[in-house]
Amino acid sequence: MNLNGVHVEDTFAELFPMKYSRLLVTAATERLALTSAREATGFGTSIIMAPGEAGIERTLSGDETPDGRPGAVIQVWHRDEENLQNALLGRIGQCVLTAPTTALFDAGEDQGFPLGKQVAFFGDGHQRQQERYGRDVWVVPRMDGDFVIEDSVSIEDGVAGGNFFVLGETQGSALQGTEAAIDAIDRVEGVIASFPGGICSSGSKPGSEQYGFMLATTNEAYAPSLRDEVDTALPDEVGAVYEIVMNGVTLEALEEATAAGIRAATTVDGVVGIDAGNYGGNIGPYKIHLREVL
Amino acid sequence: MNLNGVHVEDTFAELFPMKYSRLLVTAATERLALTSAREATGFGTSIIMAPGEAGIERTLSGDETPDGRPGAVIQVWHRDEENLQNALLGRIGQCVLTAPTTALFDAGEDQGFPLGKQVAFFGDGHQRQQERYGRDVWVVPRMDGDFVIEDSVSIEDGVAGGNFFVLGETQGSALQGTEAAIDAIDRVEGVIASFPGGICSSGSKPGSEQYGFMLATTNEAYAPSLRDEVDTALPDEVGAVYEIVMNGVTLEALEEATAAGIRAATTVDGVVGIDAGNYGGNIGPYKIHLREVL
Amino acid sequence: MNLNGVHVEDTFAELFPMKYSRLLVTAATERLALTSAREATGFGTSIIMAPGEAGIERTLSGDETPDGRPGAVIQVWHRDEENLQNALLGRIGQCVLTAPTTALFDAGEDQGFPLGKQVAFFGDGHQRQQERYGRDVWVVPRMDGDFVIEDSVSIEDGVAGGNFFVLGETQGSALQGTEAAIDAIDRVEGVIASFPGGICSSGSKPGSEQYGFMLATTNEAYAPSLRDEVDTALPDEVGAVYEIVMNGVTLEALEEATAAGIRAATTVDGVVGIDAGNYGGNIGPYKIHLREVL
Amino acid sequence: MNLNGVHVEDTFAELFPMKYSRLLVTAATERLALTSAREATGFGTSIIMAPGEAGIERTLSGDETPDGRPGAVIQVWHRDEENLQNALLGRIGQCVLTAPTTALFDAGEDQGFPLGKQVAFFGDGHQRQQERYGRDVWVVPRMDGDFVIEDSVSIEDGVAGGNFFVLGETQGSALQGTEAAIDAIDRVEGVIASFPGGICSSGSKPGSEQYGFMLATTNEAYAPSLRDEVDTALPDEVGAVYEIVMNGVTLEALEEATAAGIRAATTVDGVVGIDAGNYGGNIGPYKIHLREVL
Repeated sequence: MNLNGVHVEDTFAELFPMKYSRLLVTAATERLALTSAREATGFGTSIIMAPGEAGIERTLSGDETPDGRPGAVIQVWHRDEENLQNALLGRIGQCVLTAPTTALFDAGEDQGFPLGKQVAFFGDGHQRQQERYGRDVWVVPRMDGDFVIEDSVSIEDGVAGGNFFVLGETQGSALQGTEAAIDAIDRVEGVIASFPGGICSSGSKPGSEQYGFMLATTNEAYAPSLRDEVDTALPDEVGAVYEIVMNGVTLEALEEATAAGIRAATTVDGVVGIDAGNYGGNIGPYKIHLREVL
Repeated sequence: MNLNGVHVEDTFAELFPMKYSRLLVTAATERLALTSAREATGFGTSIIMAPGEAGIERTLSGDETPDGRPGAVIQVWHRDEENLQNALLGRIGQCVLTAPTTALFDAGEDQGFPLGKQVAFFGDGHQRQQERYGRDVWVVPRMDGDFVIEDSVSIEDGVAGGNFFVLGETQGSALQGTEAAIDAIDRVEGVIASFPGGICSSGSKPGSEQYGFMLATTNEAYAPSLRDEVDTALPDEVGAVYEIVMNGVTLEALEEATAAGIRAATTVDGVVGIDAGNYGGNIGPYKIHLREVL
Repeated sequence: MNLNGVHVEDTFAELFPMKYSRLLVTAATERLALTSAREATGFGTSIIMAPGEAGIERTLSGDETPDGRPGAVIQVWHRDEENLQNALLGRIGQCVLTAPTTALFDAGEDQGFPLGKQVAFFGDGHQRQQERYGRDVWVVPRMDGDFVIEDSVSIEDGVAGGNFFVLGETQGSALQGTEAAIDAIDRVEGVIASFPGGICSSGSKPGSEQYGFMLATTNEAYAPSLRDEVDTALPDEVGAVYEIVMNGVTLEALEEATAAGIRAATTVDGVVGIDAGNYGGNIGPYKIHLREVL
Repeated sequence: MNLNGVHVEDTFAELFPMKYSRLLVTAATERLALTSAREATGFGTSIIMAPGEAGIERTLSGDETPDGRPGAVIQVWHRDEENLQNALLGRIGQCVLTAPTTALFDAGEDQGFPLGKQVAFFGDGHQRQQERYGRDVWVVPRMDGDFVIEDSVSIEDGVAGGNFFVLGETQGSALQGTEAAIDAIDRVEGVIASFPGGICSSGSKPGSEQYGFMLATTNEAYAPSLRDEVDTALPDEVGAVYEIVMNGVTLEALEEATAAGIRAATTVDGVVGIDAGNYGGNIGPYKIHLREVL
């Protein structure tokens, strides 16, 4: 299959369930909401060794938020509820409570985890539970006024591991194609790409052939400098590859993001192939076939 | 003492020793170096509940880096060596190894922690130890080419807890004054301000009067909404306060940053006072007296 | 009338017709489209002494553009068709043709001005007229490949001079409120705010009382430092004012932007009033009454 | 000559004298100074059809500016003094006077053009001439307080037309190499690169072979899509080229920028050549030989 003259491999991504929370950071201006959201979602690339996976899903205007102020929807993911709760306590308590002019609301559906109540202990007895904007919130005195945080937030079941590879003639072309894909994915509701700038340059396979203690190691079949040493998956004309890894609130959102991302990547000069990562179908119960979603 | 018509309180910040590493992320362009550096230093505000404190110190031109490419100097801090090593393994392995076109070098002096060797296990046997640019490095095959990482990095003794408060007539003025201070601090070598945008809106006191499980709670004397309930430290005309918290490679660097930051804050309309946080002198062995450094 | 506790003056903005073109800059990535769009709309604040008024209206995903690449919709305005054509030739020929990976399409309705044909003379005989993406375009060889530009672009009748003032207790609060308003206006389709960052700090009256050669001079009734010298319009508690000036493709778009901007400004701490500029109703045939649109 | 394995052509750039002003925009924060500076230097790529050439040279901390606030040094260039004065009146009056919290100072040496006095007529009789910070300034009442502008600014003789070409295997690699070069050039004092993002994708030759009315047209020898139609200068492996065009306060500054930019470009994967533009030595009296400055 060719798209804009670019070969799309007949393959699929393998996906698996994970837990996530979807939260809304509002602030006096969008710039300030993003300052907090970026800190709160930093060091959030992969649960392999990061404290949860996290990213900014999209920004909202004041017309779309409880307190009428601009905001950023963020997602935080982890393998189970306990790890996710710990990640949330740290990320919200350290990066949203602490950021200028912010408030924090749930952006999901089934509020069950009392994050707000716990963060509000920072008020040292001066915190107050109130109803504001039709929500059950805590009001916590801090130096720049009062911090408002919703009492409980949702923890829901989502889908992780959406992915595809962008193969380019050169590193510059592969990267430009991947950046174009990220531009497109950024507009799909419900999806985050948690690697730096949304892009992973060190695509991996599960486990290791050499080191029992490693949870993931380089996907050597796609490493250009190992082309002559291993059973390479790289066509001759490929000089570099980037992987996009995505989590989404539904499989459908990830299918839409995969299709939009691939279409965008193929518009870029020097992009010569699209591929994806799967490991015999043993990693997870969901599949996204690249050619089917396009 | 008045500076540009702004009252500077006769007080001091209390500081204490912590461990840090100072690392250099290079990439094909400065934009790409910063993409990695921002992810690697995210969720790094305070060790109270974040996995280390981290920030971008400054950017370097290719003339100043081992591989001739632009770079960003980052710092990662923790209370002791073991915690710092864990933070480094996660932050570099998850946010620099994974980022497009990056390399990682030590920017300190006594390379003792074999971070590079450990991160290089990602190569699954294909990693190679080499000398490049006069440095002992590992070359790790990844999808966009080879990742270069210095074999060992330094862990050194620095000073944490530098701080001052910016008091404004309104929230907008206090924030603008604090942002001006951060602009100035960003130019002081050796110093980071790890809170979101460099700014802490939830200045705290150690411990809690109400909750034994809390390591830090709101500094109620500086909370405007508690003005009538507690023994406030806020003059009548103050509507909001922000705190800047800084770590530095030396006490002298923090003194310079404190002075530069305060001078900058006082140039902003609506800033009416400068103060600092200390807790009876019991927190740490170092002091920075605001009036002395100005 | 009070909105979020902020007084909204019973007044109106006066508006008048102007000519505009609405164009689409696409590029390999959104970042590159914006690099070109920012240069092309720079030095475009007011036709009083700038070569047209210009701004970025919004960004588009590849799904919404002719060539499937991300893009930025820009508007360029002038008092008449001849001046607008000159502004377009300069801005597009110098800032879009010259920018990496760009293409230029019309985003209006009645293509009548052969901008593309004229810019394509740059090809020095090597330009080619073609149909691509269902559009009549010129293909112009340049150093990074071929530049594609639509043969003709639209020149249409729009409405200029939409405005309101944000009054704050301090400069910092007035500015933060105005930035919140710009965040909201940025999301309204069809509208640009052409001043730096969308904000005018030097609101003016038409003409001058002192200098016949000046087309516009300071609106002294709103200048805080002239409060005691002139017949001021400033309540006692106001320390600073910013004006937002907007052009829109229809009066309705400007009404929507005015309402959204005012609502946003009133959510900011320290904003104490909203006002607008009119000059006896003699400047233009259209009016936007602040209280009516809210 | 090879640099990092990249061929550097044995050629030179041709340069010529032009007039420039070097000005300093200060503001409450660096972000606000840059908002004004970007608008003031926009639509400033080439005097062929833009109102002067303009760019941001560098930013300054408050320690380096007259009013102790952060600032941005900008340059504006034109072919003669009269055109430059017009460009300055428009750019400063429309983009600095109008921007939040700004002030404007000369950053040159021989203040001879009374820009400040003329812009200050905006005060409509309320402007006041004063000495502040050891400078002769005008204080002009505006909505957010008083605008301060130095009475006179310098107009000096500089050197324009510094240039080199970055040749890449693909468009993505050529662009990444050129962006690396711009990162390096941004750090050289006294130099601006006025095209969008500092980069010109439509390198030109003077005049036209086909159209007498065109001052510059495509440099077809470097256009990849004309490779088979014209006497190409492109080696087989080159897929795309970008040009960097620079103006500088001295020839030495441009030599330094040329060397730094070329060195940086050659560190990027997929960059395969460096070249430069000259037209028989008839354009200007100065030359920069690429190999000599390296």
